[in-house]
Parts: sequence; C-alpha cells; structure tokens
Amino acid sequence: MIDLRPIHIELPPWVDQLLADWPKVYGSDEAAMGLAIALARENVRRGSGGPFGALVLESVSRRVLAVGVNQVLASRCSLAHAELLAIGIAQQSLGGPDLGRLVPGGCTLVSSAEPCAMCLGAIPWAGINRLVCGARGQDVRAIGFDEGDKPKEWARALERRGIAVIRDCLRREAAAVIRDYPDAGGIIYGPRREKRG
Amino acid sequence: MIDLRPIHIELPPWVDQLLADWPKVYGSDEAAMGLAIALARENVRRGSGGPFGALVLESVSRRVLAVGVNQVLASRCSLAHAELLAIGIAQQSLGGPDLGRLVPGGCTLVSSAEPCAMCLGAIPWAGINRLVCGARGQDVRAIGFDEGDKPKEWARALERRGIAVIRDCLRREAAAVIRDYPDAGGIIYGPRREKRG
Repeated sequence: MIDLRPIHIELPPWVDQLLADWPKVYGSDEAAMGLAIALARENVRRGSGGPFGALVLESVSRRVLAVGVNQVLASRCSLAHAELLAIGIAQQSLGGPDLGRLVPGGCTLVSSAEPCAMCLGAIPWAGINRLVCGARGQDVRAIGFDEGDKPKEWARALERRGIAVIRDCLRREAAAVIRDYPDAGGIIYGPRREKRG
Repeated sequence: MIDLRPIHIELPPWVDQLLADWPKVYGSDEAAMGLAIALARENVRRGSGGPFGALVLESVSRRVLAVGVNQVLASRCSLAHAELLAIGIAQQSLGGPDLGRLVPGGCTLVSSAEPCAMCLGAIPWAGINRLVCGARGQDVRAIGFDEGDKPKEWARALERRGIAVIRDCLRREAAAVIRDYPDAGGIIYGPRREKRG
C-alpha cells in the first residue's frame, strides 16, 4: 500500500512554557536572536532535537508570529528544520504561503545559525524580506553537520532579491550551543555519504 | 499569542482514486515518470495545485513508497512542493528521516520537473540516492515560476555526493503539463519581488 498520510510536524511541548517567559515583541535583532538561541539551547538540554532555533517576526511591528526548533529526529522527517517549522507555522497560522503579502512590511526570519541549502531555498518562496543569522555555516559544519550545496555568495543572491541579510548576530552565543551539542549526547544526523571528486 | 499549531500538509483526496489505476512497482524510470506526470496533470485539471508531481521509489525493488503533488495554495504553506510531500510522507510512513538507511539500496525521487532550490537542498538530507527529472528548470521558469538560486552545476554537485541524476525523462510530456497550467487558470505564486543588480 502506498501511504497517503498527511505530513505532521509539531513543536515539542516545552516551547509553550519557555515562551511564557519571553516578550512577544523585540526591538532589536539581538534581542530576537536571544530567543532563537534560548530555543536552540533548550532543545539540546531537553534532548528534543538539534541545536537550532528560529523565529518569524513581523519586520515592522517586530512581533513574533511563530517559532521553530529542530525536530528532524523527533518528527522522523528531514524537513523539520527550525527555520522551516517557524515559516510553515507562521503561514498556516496567517492562512497563506506568502508572508510578504500577508504582513505589511514583510517578515524577518531569525535563525540561530545560517540556513542550510534547503532552508535558504525556502526563504524567497516564503516571502521573507530580512534574514538574521547567529552562528556561521562553518560553526555548524565544525561538529559534522553537512549543510548541503549552497550557491556561492548565497547572501548576495538573497540581497539581489531584496532580502536583507544580517550575519554574526550573537554568533558566539549561538555557536556555543552548537559546539556543546555533541557533548550533550546529540546525534549528528543527515547526509554523511562518501564524497567523490 | 504566538501560534504553536503543528504543520499539517495533506494530499488532495483524488490522489487515492488515481493511484488505484496505477501499478505499485515501476520497472523503468519512464514508467515511474508517467505516474509523476499523471499526478501533475490531474492536479491542474482538478484545480488543486501547481503543475508538479513527484514520487519516492525504493531504488532496488522499484516499489512506490509515497507520492506528492504541489499543494502550496491549498495547504497555505510554501513548503508544500510535490517533492517535499513525497519525501516527508515516505519518511513519516517508514518512521525515520534518512530514507537511505531505512531502505536497503536507497530511494529514488522522481519529479515531473527539476527541483527548485529548496527541494534540491532537501535531497541529501532525505537520503535519496537517485533523482529522475522530467521538465527542465527553464520549462518551469518559462511560465513565470521563480525556482530560486540553485548552485551552478547543481546536478554535478549531487553526483559528487553519490546521488545519480537523470534528466529529460519524458521532458516533452512533463513540460506540456506545465505549459498548459496558465491557460487552465493556474496561479503563478511565489517570489515575484523586484530584482536588483
């Protein structure tokens, strides 16, 4: 039988509790990044997923629309990256696939690490107009994750589309959560196939 | 309130009926592509989504594990590309994010069109070891869809990872479904922001 079940990806139950202690509106990118990093750190501490957190903010009001944490292993689905959870939840909450049209002034994606190739590709489709990144791709690769094949000059490619890219926002704190993940017993899942050429 | 709902993406109800008339095992890539194109065509005919269909096959047994059709507008979620639906459903059906480990000999993704930047990025994470494409990216762009920024030489980049790439499999038939989509009243959603530089 070919399985026709829906795709179902949910946040871990502790997210609700964590958010109760955090503001709903963030005046600065650093403040918003603080929440993305707190989500990543708690995901590691609880053993509920990879060391990555993200959120979608309204770019003008700076209000949080949705958050995400890595749920690849828990949801048994490789699509469940923090960024895609935050994007998908924001879209289904607002009722449409283009956040840039649904929210006057557009939406900002705040991610505790630079997005992998998949999540980068998702950003224009989602109508995001600002991307704020914490850790660098090299911080993610340093513990063995393989981010995939990004376009060379990916940040410039986004900027050519009118999507602003802010890098190294609280990079040290964000990278520390990633660096601690293997010691906390975290699993480095994903493509580890032999590379040729 | 920050919405914490799960992401939920489902196939349209007609998929079950269509599959009843198709085999479960495909000896050739062309035969499997026939199903991907039939899914794309029916999605357009029913007005249920974009002109794209995909399936995940076990690479050795050639058995279909899951199928997908574009559901971006219906699911109100920009992640709902045909390839990601087929991948996510196959993973949640088998119970893990790495199809390459779950299925001896790995899995093949058959897509009625070359994947966009997001779906390309998803392929290594999912543990796919063969990609079979129908229409070319230029056939998709010709009706106004913006596939995003792929790495130059994306096929070679996948092959360097040990992922075989087969292009132009029934390209003419696959491209015809795409070409007919605007005339059938299909909406060209997605990033249409002004490009600079």
